[in-house]
Amino acid sequence: MSYFKNVNKIKYEGAGSSNPLAFKHYNENEVVLGKSMKEHLRFAVAYWHTLTMDGSDPFGKGNMIRPWETVSGMDLAKARVEVNFEFLEKLGVPYYCFHDRDIAPEGNTLQETNENLDVIIAKLKEGMNATGIKLLWNTANMFTNPRFVHGAATSSNAEVFAYAAAQVKKGLDTGLELGSENYVFWGGREGYESLLNTDMGLELDNLAKFFHMALDYAKEIGYTGQFLIEPKPKEPSKHQYDFDAATTIAFLQKYDLQNHFKLNLEANHATLAGHTFEHELRVARINNMLGSVDANQGDMLLGWDTDEFPTDVASVTLAMYEILENGGLGSGGVNFDAKVRRGSFDPEDLFYSHIAGMDTFAKGLKVAGKLIEDKFFDNILDERYASFKSGIGADIVAGKTDLKSLAAYAMQADEIKNKSNHLELIKAQLNEYMF
Amino acid sequence: MSYFKNVNKIKYEGAGSSNPLAFKHYNENEVVLGKSMKEHLRFAVAYWHTLTMDGSDPFGKGNMIRPWETVSGMDLAKARVEVNFEFLEKLGVPYYCFHDRDIAPEGNTLQETNENLDVIIAKLKEGMNATGIKLLWNTANMFTNPRFVHGAATSSNAEVFAYAAAQVKKGLDTGLELGSENYVFWGGREGYESLLNTDMGLELDNLAKFFHMALDYAKEIGYTGQFLIEPKPKEPSKHQYDFDAATTIAFLQKYDLQNHFKLNLEANHATLAGHTFEHELRVARINNMLGSVDANQGDMLLGWDTDEFPTDVASVTLAMYEILENGGLGSGGVNFDAKVRRGSFDPEDLFYSHIAGMDTFAKGLKVAGKLIEDKFFDNILDERYASFKSGIGADIVAGKTDLKSLAAYAMQADEIKNKSNHLELIKAQLNEYMF
Amino acid sequence: MSYFKNVNKIKYEGAGSSNPLAFKHYNENEVVLGKSMKEHLRFAVAYWHTLTMDGSDPFGKGNMIRPWETVSGMDLAKARVEVNFEFLEKLGVPYYCFHDRDIAPEGNTLQETNENLDVIIAKLKEGMNATGIKLLWNTANMFTNPRFVHGAATSSNAEVFAYAAAQVKKGLDTGLELGSENYVFWGGREGYESLLNTDMGLELDNLAKFFHMALDYAKEIGYTGQFLIEPKPKEPSKHQYDFDAATTIAFLQKYDLQNHFKLNLEANHATLAGHTFEHELRVARINNMLGSVDANQGDMLLGWDTDEFPTDVASVTLAMYEILENGGLGSGGVNFDAKVRRGSFDPEDLFYSHIAGMDTFAKGLKVAGKLIEDKFFDNILDERYASFKSGIGADIVAGKTDLKSLAAYAMQADEIKNKSNHLELIKAQLNEYMF
Amino acid sequence: MSYFKNVNKIKYEGAGSSNPLAFKHYNENEVVLGKSMKEHLRFAVAYWHTLTMDGSDPFGKGNMIRPWETVSGMDLAKARVEVNFEFLEKLGVPYYCFHDRDIAPEGNTLQETNENLDVIIAKLKEGMNATGIKLLWNTANMFTNPRFVHGAATSSNAEVFAYAAAQVKKGLDTGLELGSENYVFWGGREGYESLLNTDMGLELDNLAKFFHMALDYAKEIGYTGQFLIEPKPKEPSKHQYDFDAATTIAFLQKYDLQNHFKLNLEANHATLAGHTFEHELRVARINNMLGSVDANQGDMLLGWDTDEFPTDVASVTLAMYEILENGGLGSGGVNFDAKVRRGSFDPEDLFYSHIAGMDTFAKGLKVAGKLIEDKFFDNILDERYASFKSGIGADIVAGKTDLKSLAAYAMQADEIKNKSNHLELIKAQLNEYMF
Repeated sequence: MSYFKNVNKIKYEGAGSSNPLAFKHYNENEVVLGKSMKEHLRFAVAYWHTLTMDGSDPFGKGNMIRPWETVSGMDLAKARVEVNFEFLEKLGVPYYCFHDRDIAPEGNTLQETNENLDVIIAKLKEGMNATGIKLLWNTANMFTNPRFVHGAATSSNAEVFAYAAAQVKKGLDTGLELGSENYVFWGGREGYESLLNTDMGLELDNLAKFFHMALDYAKEIGYTGQFLIEPKPKEPSKHQYDFDAATTIAFLQKYDLQNHFKLNLEANHATLAGHTFEHELRVARINNMLGSVDANQGDMLLGWDTDEFPTDVASVTLAMYEILENGGLGSGGVNFDAKVRRGSFDPEDLFYSHIAGMDTFAKGLKVAGKLIEDKFFDNILDERYASFKSGIGADIVAGKTDLKSLAAYAMQADEIKNKSNHLELIKAQLNEYMF
Repeated sequence: MSYFKNVNKIKYEGAGSSNPLAFKHYNENEVVLGKSMKEHLRFAVAYWHTLTMDGSDPFGKGNMIRPWETVSGMDLAKARVEVNFEFLEKLGVPYYCFHDRDIAPEGNTLQETNENLDVIIAKLKEGMNATGIKLLWNTANMFTNPRFVHGAATSSNAEVFAYAAAQVKKGLDTGLELGSENYVFWGGREGYESLLNTDMGLELDNLAKFFHMALDYAKEIGYTGQFLIEPKPKEPSKHQYDFDAATTIAFLQKYDLQNHFKLNLEANHATLAGHTFEHELRVARINNMLGSVDANQGDMLLGWDTDEFPTDVASVTLAMYEILENGGLGSGGVNFDAKVRRGSFDPEDLFYSHIAGMDTFAKGLKVAGKLIEDKFFDNILDERYASFKSGIGADIVAGKTDLKSLAAYAMQADEIKNKSNHLELIKAQLNEYMF
Repeated sequence: MSYFKNVNKIKYEGAGSSNPLAFKHYNENEVVLGKSMKEHLRFAVAYWHTLTMDGSDPFGKGNMIRPWETVSGMDLAKARVEVNFEFLEKLGVPYYCFHDRDIAPEGNTLQETNENLDVIIAKLKEGMNATGIKLLWNTANMFTNPRFVHGAATSSNAEVFAYAAAQVKKGLDTGLELGSENYVFWGGREGYESLLNTDMGLELDNLAKFFHMALDYAKEIGYTGQFLIEPKPKEPSKHQYDFDAATTIAFLQKYDLQNHFKLNLEANHATLAGHTFEHELRVARINNMLGSVDANQGDMLLGWDTDEFPTDVASVTLAMYEILENGGLGSGGVNFDAKVRRGSFDPEDLFYSHIAGMDTFAKGLKVAGKLIEDKFFDNILDERYASFKSGIGADIVAGKTDLKSLAAYAMQADEIKNKSNHLELIKAQLNEYMF
Repeated sequence: MSYFKNVNKIKYEGAGSSNPLAFKHYNENEVVLGKSMKEHLRFAVAYWHTLTMDGSDPFGKGNMIRPWETVSGMDLAKARVEVNFEFLEKLGVPYYCFHDRDIAPEGNTLQETNENLDVIIAKLKEGMNATGIKLLWNTANMFTNPRFVHGAATSSNAEVFAYAAAQVKKGLDTGLELGSENYVFWGGREGYESLLNTDMGLELDNLAKFFHMALDYAKEIGYTGQFLIEPKPKEPSKHQYDFDAATTIAFLQKYDLQNHFKLNLEANHATLAGHTFEHELRVARINNMLGSVDANQGDMLLGWDTDEFPTDVASVTLAMYEILENGGLGSGGVNFDAKVRRGSFDPEDLFYSHIAGMDTFAKGLKVAGKLIEDKFFDNILDERYASFKSGIGADIVAGKTDLKSLAAYAMQADEIKNKSNHLELIKAQLNEYMF
């Protein structure tokens, strides 16, 4: 049975094509810097936005037209599995990602819930075997159910902590069963609504304990996927503990977790935290913490997570540059944590939007590859930091100086000449690469 | 000679007083939780805002009426020393703070600059001895002079790094000479204008080296003041490396500096980073990093550092609560990093504004003290986190659980009941303490 | 039948009371500036937040404990009517407000929907007659149903425009039947998601036509309630046409509607637009457009409409000052467009939160009344603008000058002396009124 | 004498050129939609950013290397006139703009100040005659001098109002003398620092009187340039009266000024007000108020006016589309109200940055022209709003409906089908035009 009868397999037709159901830039076997686009980008579709999202928002009811929403409960869950593989195969995307509650409905008890999961996991495994499609990462939804009103691993209620532990245990079992390449922790409601009633110290200690238990359990069962944390500054909580890359790194360092986690960075979360996407990627990169990305874009004039499909070539080019400089994303990938606008409610819009995002990343990859081939940024940095390659600068870098020796140096050389950055010229040159 | 002839020593007259030149709440010897207000608050006046600030802004020339601005150069620097002590004595404030360039003008060479400093330092020492007024902290201005256009310890120019080292060396010598109780690093231009030409890894490595050198030198000369870093997210740079408390802690941890630094937190910098002031204080407190505060307030609807005098009793009460829970600020204090509005250009406005700030903190201290005496927040937390005191919660805290045991627990106890936070009631009760 | 068995009628017990179910400041018959608090404040409860809101948010399912949610459909609608009157009577609030879809469920056809409405309207009327409680305003929900995905009166679909017209017609009929004192237009989805596909000119022309038709119909049926527009800058749309007070006034003026509408201003909408609440009230006041207020508060660090209950006494004091200076709100009132936090899910929280809000407004009213009695602000303005009372200033105000005469004046008097604002002193003095 | 010896006349070399001192896209005689680029774009250089800006910011002293800053006072003013014409001729820009205080220093009296002006005006006129370069607009700086601390035409001091009148009178005389094609009012300090001491009603009444006097005087002397107001939401004031396009239009309408003014819209001011640049242009366009533009761009993550040179092709394309749809800018033009970054302090950076901006606008113009030729947006709108072309929709537009007829229509046709916007597809297609 087909749920997207009007759509055939999406093909690459090149920039001149006017076919809305074709790629203009994403050509999966095209080679950039020695690797195919497919290998570089490792695209993934997000189950929640594509299979379950209904278009509702705080002011409106669901409005998406989804041909599979004719049944409910486990029947719907099973239908979505079929939709998933049809969609990914037609789109030519090699990976998908899910929260536990995306794929199967909760039952009346935790046991029933897990049984529901098992049925769907088996069906997913079957589909994966049949299609070769793989699971980039899975995670646990510990924010939708009312029990998580005060958080999960940082809940003020120990019973909820235990429940969350049970959920993550099942999540790791699931990851093992389906061979997920990463396991993601997104804070959900780990944070606070108000400091007035929050014991931040206890909550963070508990969160660290939770992560250590997850690591121990993964080791025990032989799950080898990379653990990832996804920072977000606010929403749904007023303050989310994993505010941004730097905050998350501080937490991991404090609790001796930094060698076991990497970051899953989202563009829209970056801007909500007051940073560019490339900034967050850079912070992770220089800390050896860049694990995966959630591809989307926010509206810089709106203060909530809009999760739009990425179409900003300039931003994506800089993101791809960081990823290439990182040597790629390892076991991570480019997951479209993006949803069609409420006004784009046709099933075809799911294709249009993913094509838009994939073409944007393909274009960004190509431009970033060219920038690297041309040593565009390397040359800028080499010239700008040249003074640290010899003389006093080299001594500083080598750790051979102290305040006294530097003061003595400065005392006899205090006529300093700086060089202009020519930043406007750099931006103009960068534009020529993009347009 | 008096520069504030119309102003006598400011006295406490109580809440009923209509005298604009009297305290309504700050009564320096009044005891709160066993200590005098003066000991709790350790107020300091900022040399730069009170003695040198001229009212200019990006769209306007200086307009402040300052009776001492009749001379220039070293004569002006000397006059300001006299103004400083007259102002502090009349205000009854025990501390002051300065940047090196606030107190003495730069000369044609670094040596001449240092000689200028020495003259003024001697004069300051004399005044300190005569009045008993002390130096809360000193710091180096490494952002005003054009040489710092690309940063100081994170400059792309090694010569500038050396110059900055010389300046901090002199700053530590100054701290030793004047007995400053802390030495502050405020990032100034340590950050970037654009990622496009920034080697963030090298710059942060250099910054860490710089701090280690400063620590070594302080040890060498026997300077025992507390080292403090003051986070700020942006301005003047697009991105400042010491973005907020958590980011700064991540940096300090990475470079093994966390035991040698504490944080000097500013209210307006907190809000520019997207946090409340009390949030930043809390983050520092639970990391044992709360060192001192820069007291001011921003305009929540404006995106730049307005450095207004603090008059928001609600915010200051929560800040004082964090400070009291921290066991006070140790060698730190409450420094008014605040400037009179451009339209408040009379000399008397310097008094009005400091009185406003001091009364606000005194009021906040009293309310916070009462909240602690009444165990207002303790009771809320005790009840809210009660489940972690016994049973499964106590086991979690004690590290006796793992995912399997918790999952087994959850499996037989998945009917979870949470308790309402009653947050609106808490806020109403808190209002009753304040108003 | 009682839905709030644990709650008795809320009484005034004064500031010393520790009873969470008592007023500390709101004493309905207490006289301020010659009128009772009840007459000044004209409080209203919002049906949607109190009767139908379930606590769901973009990341979580409904979690509110509401004893009446045991039935559904029209039975639930009828139960809510009873809850409404019990709640208002116990709270001592004289008014309520609703959207059409709050009070009755939609049927399968518009006719059935209207019939559902008629049943509930009759029941509401009965309750109003029995209790003396009145309808401050009613409005139409033209944003929840998927048909409004592209807007209502500004939809790109003429059928939707017609449907919206039908809904407003019924709304005015309802207002007439229930004697609502105002009829409110809140833009809902009147705005755009993207300029790329928006004919802003046509949409605004249509909106103006819509309003003119509503005015004509009200006249025709003899509905005399005040028409109100509620500005909001964004959410759910990226851009809402009624962005703020000034934008709405521009629209009304352009289409010759300014004499028939006033503004219903909401605190949280003000801050989302980059303004203080008192700013929006002032803009409306000087344009004779201040009609009613939606009382709540936002979180200044969050970018979405949090609709928190107002507890900020400082802000509410300034708001009440504007309202008093306006000569009150006329047929308008203070409607709590505020919702309990997700973590405040007990039925009692509905009382705690309204009490918090009512006490805050009562306190603000008392302080504002005192400020007016003392001519606190009048004196400041009189002194500050004194130069416009005589001489050249009086000539300017009287329209007796032109550029030439003023230039001639300036030419012989260009040594200008300004007076300091002493703004910090004003803020300190204002604090003494509040705390 | 040449001040830019290393720079020859900038020529168009096309997209492939690697010459930093050549245009890649701006080819002044290239025809787009029937007009040359030069005629479409009407570029202007801003005297203040190019000739007088020294690189200082709130945390740093001036650092720009400017070969003409070897003299001071009137000598410097004269030198800058020469620099101006050399720069414009080499750049091939036909217009410039200035504030009165940019071109000549203030004297000890207003008379002396005007005499200084007259000397420079004569020299400018000479240069204009010699080069054919023209004055796009002039304006008065009524914000830098301390006398404007409380505003100019909205000052609380009538003497300042008179002084401002004198300054604008001279400005109009100057415009007449130099043939400026527009006269601009930018609010400067017209706004408030605090509502607490502001009589907003009086200040706005005064502002309107001021504008009427300016109109009368222009008429009297025969000055026929277009009057323009430049909105800005905040900075330097906390609130600027001309907040955005809509707010300014409301003001103009209220005081019957709307037929005599148009708007000069700035990109960075738009985003500070929470709008896209194209939004502001659209609002002005549909109100027949689009007069001129200040071309620059802000940093969406910073809260102050960064005035960066425009390099965002996507944004500029949409801006140019609005301008083309407006039938061009009439007597207005594209003025680079943009400054080089502090780190771009070489004289050559003035060329690099203007070239970057001009090429960006040229590229945007070409893409916008193509979008118009292809009816890209027209087709989208035609399809989207088709329902208003016939049937009930046409009746609505024609004013033939009322609530009753529409309700009757809706009652029998309440099964409404909306069409998807396919917004992601539109964005992808738009990207293909740009990249």
